[in-house]
Amino acid sequence: MPSIDLGNSRGGERDFIQSIERGFAVLHAFDEKDPTPTLAEVATKTGLSRPAVRRILLTLQRLGYVTALGTRWSLTPRVLSIGQHYSSSHALVDAALPKLVEIADHTNESASLGVLDGPDVVYAARIPVRRIMSINVSVGTRVPAYATSMGRALLAWAPRETVDTVIAQTRFDRLTSSTLGGAEELHTALAEVRNLGYALVSAELEEGLISLSAPIFDTNATVVGVLACSTSTGRHTIESFRDHAAKCVVSCAEQLSSDLGYRPQRD
Amino acid sequence: MPSIDLGNSRGGERDFIQSIERGFAVLHAFDEKDPTPTLAEVATKTGLSRPAVRRILLTLQRLGYVTALGTRWSLTPRVLSIGQHYSSSHALVDAALPKLVEIADHTNESASLGVLDGPDVVYAARIPVRRIMSINVSVGTRVPAYATSMGRALLAWAPRETVDTVIAQTRFDRLTSSTLGGAEELHTALAEVRNLGYALVSAELEEGLISLSAPIFDTNATVVGVLACSTSTGRHTIESFRDHAAKCVVSCAEQLSSDLGYRPQRD
Repeated sequence: MPSIDLGNSRGGERDFIQSIERGFAVLHAFDEKDPTPTLAEVATKTGLSRPAVRRILLTLQRLGYVTALGTRWSLTPRVLSIGQHYSSSHALVDAALPKLVEIADHTNESASLGVLDGPDVVYAARIPVRRIMSINVSVGTRVPAYATSMGRALLAWAPRETVDTVIAQTRFDRLTSSTLGGAEELHTALAEVRNLGYALVSAELEEGLISLSAPIFDTNATVVGVLACSTSTGRHTIESFRDHAAKCVVSCAEQLSSDLGYRPQRD
Repeated sequence: MPSIDLGNSRGGERDFIQSIERGFAVLHAFDEKDPTPTLAEVATKTGLSRPAVRRILLTLQRLGYVTALGTRWSLTPRVLSIGQHYSSSHALVDAALPKLVEIADHTNESASLGVLDGPDVVYAARIPVRRIMSINVSVGTRVPAYATSMGRALLAWAPRETVDTVIAQTRFDRLTSSTLGGAEELHTALAEVRNLGYALVSAELEEGLISLSAPIFDTNATVVGVLACSTSTGRHTIESFRDHAAKCVVSCAEQLSSDLGYRPQRD
């Protein structure tokens, strides 16, 4: 979940338009925990004054992005059109969906497409598998690259500068007792990923979560995303999940890379 | 595709913040046809001045929504986080995805979740089937309700006021030679949909496109969305598609309604 931090980017630059930032901050105040906030709740969450929030909500309402339900506010499906422009201008999402269906069918586990955005991985597409205990993420969710199989598969074949930038922006929080502890350990993990051809991470982002990711290369041999499959320790051990999912995820990622024009170099 | 029309909502209201509108207009200037426009191209497309577009692009860049590629600009996956808030705050999307996978598997055709937004239907989720000739829409795409099976299934059980509002906002363009011609014909079509329990529309939005949709009801017996399945006339006749898909789409929509707490009234 993106944090709402207006303080950092507020001042200084002449070219920065504060009301655009505030408009997005108000949109981000709607989330799963709080899908229909009141004006006062949006004000508290964003740190903006009530009159400012009122003007922004009325503007967003007129633009069709929010709607009033009595004293509460809700997003409309029109907000999906903003993300659509990313999806429709990035053919990867469309190309990946049939592979995600194949992975979800074959493994009976959730399948995801991840792309790198700064030090985070963003879910760009996802096929969930419905269970009592299911992994609760949706398209647009962000997770830190260093602690996830998606992030490590994205970084293992990335240019050195990309890895350095991600490391510089990462705090290496110990999210669980297993989370790796810093840049050196990340470099070791990335070497192992290159060696295996995929990333397998257990319980570093969250206890009980195991995920496996393989890289997608484009025609320039650039990693443009990862296909991932995830499960819980209640259903699999690390090794049983490797046996169950690795071949399918890697082969789907290779097919997708080939569809995108990638031709592996033989050496 | 949403049209960029700034003229209509620009003037007048004291509470309207024009720079927020302009920020969204610039985001909407990125699309499938033009995924990496130059500053000048964005200016032409939005009707804004180059200095205004420059300030907005720099603001969006600092917020992480766009990135510069030399003299061209591109959206980042961060724009997905805006739509995510809709998806994560509307449990319908998450609940519908496994049903969409089931429909796509069973029919070997694309499956979609549609929701009403004004006179349009918005694709809120979609499982595409990959073919040479596939139906090219992504989440967030908008289509007019009157000319689509999704729209008719959404309206057939909607309150009279909703239908009246949609009709008042609809121009009833003849998109193909088969498109229905006005409010009266729409009312007749909606009565037929109520009678069948689903909507089946051929070649009214686009020549060669056949689609079938069934309503999703929530615990208050309100239609909250539709499940749809679509094919091309090259693969099916109207009747063969009915035989192939109707039972599966209707049964998935009924299960989903039941999951949402809907209990049909027996009369």
